[in-house]
Amino acid sequence: MDSAQGPSSHWFEYPVRVQPHHTDYARVVWHGSYLEWMEDARIAMFRSVGVEYADLVKLGCDLPVIDLSLRYQKVMKLGEVATVKSRISKFEKVRLCLDQHIFSVDAKKPNVVGEVMLVPCKSDTGQILRRPPQILQDAIEKLLS
Amino acid sequence: MDSAQGPSSHWFEYPVRVQPHHTDYARVVWHGSYLEWMEDARIAMFRSVGVEYADLVKLGCDLPVIDLSLRYQKVMKLGEVATVKSRISKFEKVRLCLDQHIFSVDAKKPNVVGEVMLVPCKSDTGQILRRPPQILQDAIEKLLS
Amino acid sequence: MDSAQGPSSHWFEYPVRVQPHHTDYARVVWHGSYLEWMEDARIAMFRSVGVEYADLVKLGCDLPVIDLSLRYQKVMKLGEVATVKSRISKFEKVRLCLDQHIFSVDAKKPNVVGEVMLVPCKSDTGQILRRPPQILQDAIEKLLS
Amino acid sequence: MDSAQGPSSHWFEYPVRVQPHHTDYARVVWHGSYLEWMEDARIAMFRSVGVEYADLVKLGCDLPVIDLSLRYQKVMKLGEVATVKSRISKFEKVRLCLDQHIFSVDAKKPNVVGEVMLVPCKSDTGQILRRPPQILQDAIEKLLS
Repeated sequence: MDSAQGPSSHWFEYPVRVQPHHTDYARVVWHGSYLEWMEDARIAMFRSVGVEYADLVKLGCDLPVIDLSLRYQKVMKLGEVATVKSRISKFEKVRLCLDQHIFSVDAKKPNVVGEVMLVPCKSDTGQILRRPPQILQDAIEKLLS
Repeated sequence: MDSAQGPSSHWFEYPVRVQPHHTDYARVVWHGSYLEWMEDARIAMFRSVGVEYADLVKLGCDLPVIDLSLRYQKVMKLGEVATVKSRISKFEKVRLCLDQHIFSVDAKKPNVVGEVMLVPCKSDTGQILRRPPQILQDAIEKLLS
Repeated sequence: MDSAQGPSSHWFEYPVRVQPHHTDYARVVWHGSYLEWMEDARIAMFRSVGVEYADLVKLGCDLPVIDLSLRYQKVMKLGEVATVKSRISKFEKVRLCLDQHIFSVDAKKPNVVGEVMLVPCKSDTGQILRRPPQILQDAIEKLLS
Repeated sequence: MDSAQGPSSHWFEYPVRVQPHHTDYARVVWHGSYLEWMEDARIAMFRSVGVEYADLVKLGCDLPVIDLSLRYQKVMKLGEVATVKSRISKFEKVRLCLDQHIFSVDAKKPNVVGEVMLVPCKSDTGQILRRPPQILQDAIEKLLS
């Protein structure tokens, strides 16, 4: 896993729905609420290839977000359903980069275009884990294949 | 619907899972996060009898929480799955009282015991709606039957 | 400290303001957001008598909410300023009960009436701490005097 | 205001503190919580030049985030105090770009480096407001001077 790999050929899909606690005074989803959905989607994506995030944490490995960008293209309203589509865009050394696009039902273009970079870190010290647990490495391989 | 009705004979079940954004520094679910699950469960319960909450809001009717109590009996940890069990405990005039109990998978006793009171209000003015939309009245009847 | 003590003669005041992230689609404060303010106010109240909550946690003592009730009497809107008034209502054995009332500026009656019960617990195991750190005991004494 | 202006010569400083509800299971600030602080800081920055955000909304003008990026350089822990430093980096047509850097007390480098782009929109329709209210234009001028 030394040179850059990616992107995944497959997008992992995760369904979400706008609840009252996601919205703000403007009657649309508050811009920070999307980060919850993106996190939920990443955890479900890892589950789809056999890794429970909580188990990874028990092994002493966290996977914090160290970089993120979001472009808000269309608001979402109370009760709307959407899909978070996620894929690994690049995996290089310890950097795991994901595209995460959020589509309203039937939308052709994403409402929100997100990118996040994750790096495996030691749960106790926060230091970068150059050799993450094998189950994480295997999971990333599966997501890339 | 003048005299008190309830409780429902049936508990509506809604599955949830502890995500990182639900937890706090103590490594367990932050005490306020349960309110999100309870809200999600109520909305799904109304959907189960044909009412989309967003449609109710479009008709000019909100259903705000005006009273709530929570008893925290057992903490929940990252990755745990749980079920929010909800039922109408009492419906009297405009007051809709719900029991909402949150059970960890396989738990015999609830981790969290919640009660909420909701009152239909006008979306624009916030005033109590003595005659809520028929679809809400029908939904409550179905939940009580 | 064996028999019940309280209430404090003094209410501790903590200022807050309604930000967009506190509000929901109904253009008022989401009912769960008040729990953040109440938590902030409790921590500031302990700071006012010399205890940093983070220091307490470093000593192995958490102070989780194990019971709470809220009565929502008047909504609050974007930009409003308010005061969370907190006092110890009762301290008995390990149970620390607080009244926390939230007043809009110039309001005579509270918008929200809250009560919480806290119990000192071991940070690592979550077990009840029958003998909490002396700094917490001293802080409670000061708040009660 | 046709050609690009900025950056401001001055950074607006806004104090924050890590509360339990900002943290997650990793015992540090959850990555999405910083968005709340950044929002609070922006609103205080506008207040410092005479504009209450809630008043702007009453005039029919929202100022949603349409683009954001965050680089997480150092975690923050429970009880830490920090400063959000904000300035206008560029103002061009309707695009208001801000740098928002979050510094732990005594830190020389920011823990979090954020950039956001805001665009004035009509509160009711969400359409871009090519001619935002004069009070907003004046506020931006003051922040840029």
